[in-house]
Amino acid sequence: MQFADRLNNVETSAIRELFKLLGKPGIISFAGGFPDSALFDTEGIREAVNAALTEEPGAALQYGATEGYQPLREQLATFMASKGSQGIAASDIIVTTGSQQALDLLGKTLISPGDKVIVEGPTFLATIQCFRLYGAQLISAPVDGQGVDPDRLEQLIKEHKPKFVYLIPTFGNPSGALLSLERRRRVLELAVKHNTLIVEDDPYGDLYFDAAPPPSLLALSVNVPGSRERLVHCGSLSKVLSPGLRVGWMLGPAELLGKATMCKQFSDAHTSTFSQSTAAMYLKAGRMPATLARVRAVYAERAMTMGNALRRELGDAIEFVQPQGGLFVWARLTGAREKLVDGSLLAKRAIDKGVAFVPGAPFYASNPDHATLRLSFATVGIEKIEEGIQRLAAAT
Amino acid sequence: MQFADRLNNVETSAIRELFKLLGKPGIISFAGGFPDSALFDTEGIREAVNAALTEEPGAALQYGATEGYQPLREQLATFMASKGSQGIAASDIIVTTGSQQALDLLGKTLISPGDKVIVEGPTFLATIQCFRLYGAQLISAPVDGQGVDPDRLEQLIKEHKPKFVYLIPTFGNPSGALLSLERRRRVLELAVKHNTLIVEDDPYGDLYFDAAPPPSLLALSVNVPGSRERLVHCGSLSKVLSPGLRVGWMLGPAELLGKATMCKQFSDAHTSTFSQSTAAMYLKAGRMPATLARVRAVYAERAMTMGNALRRELGDAIEFVQPQGGLFVWARLTGAREKLVDGSLLAKRAIDKGVAFVPGAPFYASNPDHATLRLSFATVGIEKIEEGIQRLAAAT
Repeated sequence: MQFADRLNNVETSAIRELFKLLGKPGIISFAGGFPDSALFDTEGIREAVNAALTEEPGAALQYGATEGYQPLREQLATFMASKGSQGIAASDIIVTTGSQQALDLLGKTLISPGDKVIVEGPTFLATIQCFRLYGAQLISAPVDGQGVDPDRLEQLIKEHKPKFVYLIPTFGNPSGALLSLERRRRVLELAVKHNTLIVEDDPYGDLYFDAAPPPSLLALSVNVPGSRERLVHCGSLSKVLSPGLRVGWMLGPAELLGKATMCKQFSDAHTSTFSQSTAAMYLKAGRMPATLARVRAVYAERAMTMGNALRRELGDAIEFVQPQGGLFVWARLTGAREKLVDGSLLAKRAIDKGVAFVPGAPFYASNPDHATLRLSFATVGIEKIEEGIQRLAAAT
Repeated sequence: MQFADRLNNVETSAIRELFKLLGKPGIISFAGGFPDSALFDTEGIREAVNAALTEEPGAALQYGATEGYQPLREQLATFMASKGSQGIAASDIIVTTGSQQALDLLGKTLISPGDKVIVEGPTFLATIQCFRLYGAQLISAPVDGQGVDPDRLEQLIKEHKPKFVYLIPTFGNPSGALLSLERRRRVLELAVKHNTLIVEDDPYGDLYFDAAPPPSLLALSVNVPGSRERLVHCGSLSKVLSPGLRVGWMLGPAELLGKATMCKQFSDAHTSTFSQSTAAMYLKAGRMPATLARVRAVYAERAMTMGNALRRELGDAIEFVQPQGGLFVWARLTGAREKLVDGSLLAKRAIDKGVAFVPGAPFYASNPDHATLRLSFATVGIEKIEEGIQRLAAAT
């Protein structure tokens, strides 16, 4: 069978091979990217879906508008306001089938084969493959513990004139990095100065541990004239409420949202109204603040436990920035122990010792740093985290 | 803002303009393509979602496999068997976000810009636009009351060597036509003879009125050696249970399903597990046969009412084949009354008289027949159908 040419642009994932090994009994896995399903507010969601089926059964079960279910768009506008983005109207938001679909719609709407897109190095794996399927040529902008480097980003924008720049500024997957306030301003100024579209993917921003992160690019854009018109913001309920609902959303310039809505019409007609009406009822019931407080506290303890254990057990063999939110520790082998600087090699050895994580190299669209690792603390209890890191140390 | 080149291949829908007029108070609308939400089994769905949240809350709310939720795949295999397709394993099925996403994944997986695809003339509007977004050049194969003409189809296959042939063989939208058993065999034989992939889209096959339709191409393929390997089948719960769940599915050659699954991973990761687990519980509860019997009876009465009223009120001004299932009457102006042969003109006049329908021309990928009309009887009670057709007659 002859497939479409676009399929030649994607590779089967190196990570997928590793995941096949995870079925081994007794393994402690830091490899996943999932939130902990034990933290899902099942009762709140049950109440919400029953309310939706009672109060608006037709809407919850019928075809809906491609742009999204109006009561959900309204609740999301309120939710965004509660997070510091004022002045968002329901009509500024389209609902997507998870934020993965927002990425797909951006690709479909914007990327012609050969177009350049700047992403962070490292960035979300499914973003890389999603944009490549539309023929994008990806350019990696380097990231440190403070997020993307604006000077390098500006050089790359000037050099490559990208269709857009894709960033996960807050506790990104996999880097866990938090873009500083100063750099956020710089990024928005670059958008205006070079008339470049910036995509802010923000699935993790709600998952901060102690202090709230700096304002999102979206919230900050009111202070940088001209930047809002060059900004797309993608949000998601997947990490804080439930990925199974597949409810994400996207804000952006009206013309772009119009084209994305047309593309969505032919992608899946609309996002499940069954999920959308449930999410709307959940937000309306006012349960989100308590849910957020609960998941933040659990992930904060797990992140602290993992950080402390890594420092104690691996010492100068690795370096990492203690995460202030999100689901991940992003670490780098220093070579101080056994000259070990290959994350893939360590991942294989770690499986033999009964612990799994994901090597960092596949998260780079180009020039991978093979010494990197991604460790998720999200789904493992604190005692198992201690034990898992001890096993990891035994593998070095 | 500069959008992707692929957007140049789609036009804004002529129908959308018409829909803007439908808000007029008191209008009787035969224009929609929706099932009747009054027929949804809300209580059955409520029981199903509560069972899912009780019995497997983690699975219902967590990320799931891109291929689909395993218990749903198993229920769908059983459902397909109950409809005459034996020997389908759960692993032969991938779940899609409505069958619209199956079309999108076929486009993404198979169509390179410039590739030819044969569709019926007329065919589903969102199919036309979906495939064009991937750069397809569409060829229309003519349809009569018995479905697509196999002789013309064979000529077109020989002439154009299409990437695939897309058919809605059973009560298709908009034609309502039912492909005869003889023609079904011919289509499968053509697939083998010319080594051509056939896509059978079957969202309406369950909605028959008196007798069950001939076996689906999928069911029939066991009798035509070599045809199963050249056949894709798309199913949906949207017309019989609830479109809001966005649960469709696709069967096809394993290599194609593998590529489609990879594409789906980057389109929306997976279909809502909240919807999937609800659908699985619904099917498991055994409620589907009673639900089908109920909706078939209601739609059969409405179809009969509309057919009789059309014959009585419009007489020789139109011709149509009385539908044996589905949601639509597809009619053609003969010109016998006032020489009226323009469906768009009649649609505008009809709005003035207080009744809406959709002209047929936009449903053609090429060479539109401007005398055609699509009338949906699905969401209108029988008294209003009588009244609506009287208004339509007044517009001729």
